[in-house]
Amino acid sequence: MTTVKRAKRSSDYPMLSIREAWLRVSSALEPLPPVRKPLVGAAGLVLAEDIIAKDSMPPFAAASMDGYAVISSDPSLEKSITGEQDAGVKLDLSVEPGTAVRIMTGAPLPTGADAVVPFEETGENEGVVHLKVIPKPGGNVRPVGLDMAAGETVLPKGLVLGPAEIGLLAALGQFQVWVHPRPRISIMSTGNELVAADETLRPGQIRDSNSLTLSVAAAACGFEVTAASCPVRDDSGKLELALVEALNNSDAVITSGGVSMGKLDLVKPLLAKLGEVLIGRVAMKPGRPFTFAMLQGKPVFGLPGFPVSSLVCFEQFVRPALRLMSGLNLLWRPCVEVSLAENLRHDPDRTEFQRAVVKADHDGFIAYSTGSQSSGRLKSLVGANALLILPIGTGDAPVGSRVKAFLIDQPETEEELPISH
Amino acid sequence: MTTVKRAKRSSDYPMLSIREAWLRVSSALEPLPPVRKPLVGAAGLVLAEDIIAKDSMPPFAAASMDGYAVISSDPSLEKSITGEQDAGVKLDLSVEPGTAVRIMTGAPLPTGADAVVPFEETGENEGVVHLKVIPKPGGNVRPVGLDMAAGETVLPKGLVLGPAEIGLLAALGQFQVWVHPRPRISIMSTGNELVAADETLRPGQIRDSNSLTLSVAAAACGFEVTAASCPVRDDSGKLELALVEALNNSDAVITSGGVSMGKLDLVKPLLAKLGEVLIGRVAMKPGRPFTFAMLQGKPVFGLPGFPVSSLVCFEQFVRPALRLMSGLNLLWRPCVEVSLAENLRHDPDRTEFQRAVVKADHDGFIAYSTGSQSSGRLKSLVGANALLILPIGTGDAPVGSRVKAFLIDQPETEEELPISH
Repeated sequence: MTTVKRAKRSSDYPMLSIREAWLRVSSALEPLPPVRKPLVGAAGLVLAEDIIAKDSMPPFAAASMDGYAVISSDPSLEKSITGEQDAGVKLDLSVEPGTAVRIMTGAPLPTGADAVVPFEETGENEGVVHLKVIPKPGGNVRPVGLDMAAGETVLPKGLVLGPAEIGLLAALGQFQVWVHPRPRISIMSTGNELVAADETLRPGQIRDSNSLTLSVAAAACGFEVTAASCPVRDDSGKLELALVEALNNSDAVITSGGVSMGKLDLVKPLLAKLGEVLIGRVAMKPGRPFTFAMLQGKPVFGLPGFPVSSLVCFEQFVRPALRLMSGLNLLWRPCVEVSLAENLRHDPDRTEFQRAVVKADHDGFIAYSTGSQSSGRLKSLVGANALLILPIGTGDAPVGSRVKAFLIDQPETEEELPISH
Repeated sequence: MTTVKRAKRSSDYPMLSIREAWLRVSSALEPLPPVRKPLVGAAGLVLAEDIIAKDSMPPFAAASMDGYAVISSDPSLEKSITGEQDAGVKLDLSVEPGTAVRIMTGAPLPTGADAVVPFEETGENEGVVHLKVIPKPGGNVRPVGLDMAAGETVLPKGLVLGPAEIGLLAALGQFQVWVHPRPRISIMSTGNELVAADETLRPGQIRDSNSLTLSVAAAACGFEVTAASCPVRDDSGKLELALVEALNNSDAVITSGGVSMGKLDLVKPLLAKLGEVLIGRVAMKPGRPFTFAMLQGKPVFGLPGFPVSSLVCFEQFVRPALRLMSGLNLLWRPCVEVSLAENLRHDPDRTEFQRAVVKADHDGFIAYSTGSQSSGRLKSLVGANALLILPIGTGDAPVGSRVKAFLIDQPETEEELPISH
């Protein structure tokens, strides 16, 4: 008790608008360099090359129904059957005027044939088939190159590889693709009061929930969490060691805690020592102490320690930043206008993200608050599917007023099949 | 060539409406029985029990800023400092009228204190602190039970465990939860013309893309794909062996191919032999031969072999069915009204799902077709984020008309931060 410890009285960092803060984040980052990946591991990633079809698809004209392969311009309705073509092989068969080949779905068309007459529209007797209809040219035939022609650009650079795109690459026999990789993320909680969530609590301690919360959030967004460490104590040396190790093992680091202005808020000074702090304060609630720095060319996101603050900052800055690094074009959650089901308190000094449950009905979206919006109250996020945006400079929002909202999950609906037929 | 092989002339199965088909699927299924899972593996799953808080959270009253712990009703503005309380321990300190304890963010409040005055609003000199403000009761203190009280139901049965819910369980020290498990899915393609996607094509053969497409689709929806086998030949014995093995290894089986009315369409008869076929035809395009059967109490989804047909049936029937088995309440993709950017051809004999790219603008959603809607054209699904619903009984849909659409991915937007402040 001989030295007088004091907290710094004010922040060195300017208070940024959300927009200015995002501009600083997005200007500092770019998509991760492309890597060549096996197709099986490429689902959800962004293509970093144009894909050109090497072959036409389908590679041969094929029957799309069981029936008889014929020449459509041949006017005879009775034809001798000269053979049978199953799927999966190519027999040396041909069709000439007056003849037909029995053919199965998926089988290659015999030479000369240009149409298939389905069994249902024929009668067969003693090696002769009687057509009940005159076939159209190309009838019941999937032509060569229906899906794509050799040499065509079938998937452009920048496309996200979903089920259809992966299937198309498999069909083309393209099993390695250049893609932007998933960012690898390290996550570390800081704070002397924290213990790993599975340890026994002693008086004055609380369990670290942020590492797991942020890991689950990052994984749900498709990023790869390489390490979510035990909580790090508020000690400059230990923090620096942990941070440097995290940087070595990942493309981005997320910390939580230690970014306010208290005596033991050591994250900002450490980031300033090791790199460049681009954001130190943002005019948002929760999340005012949000910190962003670049170290060794990699982003470090310093999130506040309160669970709600850290998750809101994750949504507002980390998720879009990591999507940018993934090469994605759509960085933001869907943003919709909602009607308030109740009065919301809001201080006009900061933009506030209030947690809510949004329901869809015939007239649009209605938002129900999740209750007390204290940033220490993790329960305010339980079941929430939206973050309501109450802008800086506006006050309380009355019931019935319309505000913008980010949908962080699917809106609730009166669940029934939307098709009545 | 001595026997005359003929396809069956018509189907034994009635043509069902989409609604009737879904009723048959949903009536046959129920959520998988709950299992006890470690928290780390429970993200995305549905809670099968109410979670009651064993302890209050936070478990102790704590400072939410660095400052001095005081008694708010004590009128003296000068107080002797009797100690210092850091976070993470609980010292044997108490505050009485005329005294204060220096305290750090997150630290437990000393006995007697009910408010914290931040450093910024004080001056300290020679062991005495001078308050510049009179604190409010509870000021800068997170009270016991702010987030939840012991005995309270904090997460109800049926809730999906997202980041916040997982974090809350971790904070409570609840590391095992009863949840509905992810359905385990086996996927098998059938067809003599198919070869495993990494084999060399011989004339008449095509690569099996459906196994991979459906695996990626199922995994993206959070289901667990236990087996995606090599393509199975159109041979009753081989099909039966593969199907029985798939049933033994999973909660649901998806087949593709072999459900039309051709000579080698063996899946329906096999399912009828081994179990009960509840759906054999549906009035939809693509996907008319969609087949659904229950075998050994497990669902088998018989999808058509054309890649687009199989993926549309997956979206329309398999995904909602597997979500039902997961215990989820929201089974359907978001369904919105869109404006057509071009004329669409549509035959009124069936409900058609046309693939489209939907863009969001200020007036709502606009849908752009992906081109030729042939069910053999996988490219019609490339980049698509919506399935337009063109109902049975209606004809061509002109540009500008409004139709319903399932959003299978996020609508495209003119991408910019939706917050201007």
